[in-house]
Amino acid sequence: MNSIYLRVSYADTDQMGMVYYANYLAFFEKGRTELLRSIGLEYKTIEERGFYLPVLHAECKYISPAKYDDIITIETKLYEITAASITCSYGVKCDEKLLVTGKTKHSFVNKMLKPVRFPKDIKELMEKNLEEQTI
Amino acid sequence: MNSIYLRVSYADTDQMGMVYYANYLAFFEKGRTELLRSIGLEYKTIEERGFYLPVLHAECKYISPAKYDDIITIETKLYEITAASITCSYGVKCDEKLLVTGKTKHSFVNKMLKPVRFPKDIKELMEKNLEEQTI
Amino acid sequence: MNSIYLRVSYADTDQMGMVYYANYLAFFEKGRTELLRSIGLEYKTIEERGFYLPVLHAECKYISPAKYDDIITIETKLYEITAASITCSYGVKCDEKLLVTGKTKHSFVNKMLKPVRFPKDIKELMEKNLEEQTI
Amino acid sequence: MNSIYLRVSYADTDQMGMVYYANYLAFFEKGRTELLRSIGLEYKTIEERGFYLPVLHAECKYISPAKYDDIITIETKLYEITAASITCSYGVKCDEKLLVTGKTKHSFVNKMLKPVRFPKDIKELMEKNLEEQTI
Repeated sequence: MNSIYLRVSYADTDQMGMVYYANYLAFFEKGRTELLRSIGLEYKTIEERGFYLPVLHAECKYISPAKYDDIITIETKLYEITAASITCSYGVKCDEKLLVTGKTKHSFVNKMLKPVRFPKDIKELMEKNLEEQTI
Repeated sequence: MNSIYLRVSYADTDQMGMVYYANYLAFFEKGRTELLRSIGLEYKTIEERGFYLPVLHAECKYISPAKYDDIITIETKLYEITAASITCSYGVKCDEKLLVTGKTKHSFVNKMLKPVRFPKDIKELMEKNLEEQTI
Repeated sequence: MNSIYLRVSYADTDQMGMVYYANYLAFFEKGRTELLRSIGLEYKTIEERGFYLPVLHAECKYISPAKYDDIITIETKLYEITAASITCSYGVKCDEKLLVTGKTKHSFVNKMLKPVRFPKDIKELMEKNLEEQTI
Repeated sequence: MNSIYLRVSYADTDQMGMVYYANYLAFFEKGRTELLRSIGLEYKTIEERGFYLPVLHAECKYISPAKYDDIITIETKLYEITAASITCSYGVKCDEKLLVTGKTKHSFVNKMLKPVRFPKDIKELMEKNLEEQTI
């Protein structure tokens, strides 16, 4: 699991006085990028090698709202790996309170957006860091 | 079902050259607002009466990417109504091709964000416009 | 001058209950794209020809806030043309009331982001549609 | 002067492969909030006291693009103080290279959005931290 910390900005809020619901997906992206970096996979480098991880499916459960100026934690786990896809799971917290959970599934594709198998080094790093599916 | 048409702007895109995945949730919001308006419920007026429809759950399936300058259609349906929640379903199309589908579930709450029952007039308008759950 | 109409969405607002200040630049982009289209220049086609119009300078004057669900008008003019740049000016209105004004200056560059002269056809279409600088 | 560090995310980019021009204004907001916090003024607390700092004018000069995964620095200064407004100036850098500069001017208003004079404690903290206008 990888944890990052974010300060909620005014830009993130809506007139209900809380984080707009779509913005959690952008928070998930930040969590995902740092999870990959923490296991030795820079997403930027993956793209430079000609591979991409577009999103196939995303879901988000909103339990309690994050507010302006809150410092929130994004906890990201590598949840599942298949032949040509990965799934990450996310927990957004503030002061240990769980606010939002979610998952995103990504296909592994080449420049023509065709699904391809993971190169061996990427596969190995991912499998070594797969979390037990306790949630 | 209500349909709206949007032109994909540069702001919507990311460096993969397609619409960034979180932005479809903002497209869904536009579809939802116009669905409500089309059945006689202005969301702005709902808020002025002291009620809100925060999102409980959102999901999105990405089939094919929308690109810059595409004119996309957002088709929105009222999919399910419970005592204090509604679910909308969405289909995003371009030239009749289905790009993205999704659902959002909303609780019906008061100013203190406490779930409340729908006022009779709102409930009636919603129930009259509930779509058959064929999808 | 070209006019487009937009409905302010929840995504556009912040917790002050008005459109977040950065979002007007995205509104300007929509106005600019439609201005170019209206004079026969599709920005998408310009990019396909290998040219880009990145922003060199942007400014925005905030007179009165746009609110959720407002239908706003973006009026866009081609304000100035130089050898390798154009400037657009913008007025955002709601019910004839001026809310925001702005300008963006764009360089004309090739794929390597090097400034280049306008192709003759683009230059001619732009010059024919340059507005008198009365503002 | 206050400095903050940000990692450019995919959400920030557009299909030109660089940060979308409007997003720098959101970066400026983050810089401004931390500048205020660093001099003892939490913007959240200012709002809780019934005051707001809406933007009157913003401008942005784009020198060189920030790219995906860049770590950028936002340097923010308190540039000018008048009876009921403040101006902040910004410099966005990557590896010491200046990418973007800007300014935002803010009125100081009450809940009815009427301009008001600064409370003495706020005024004093701001004046003590006004930078010399060398830029």
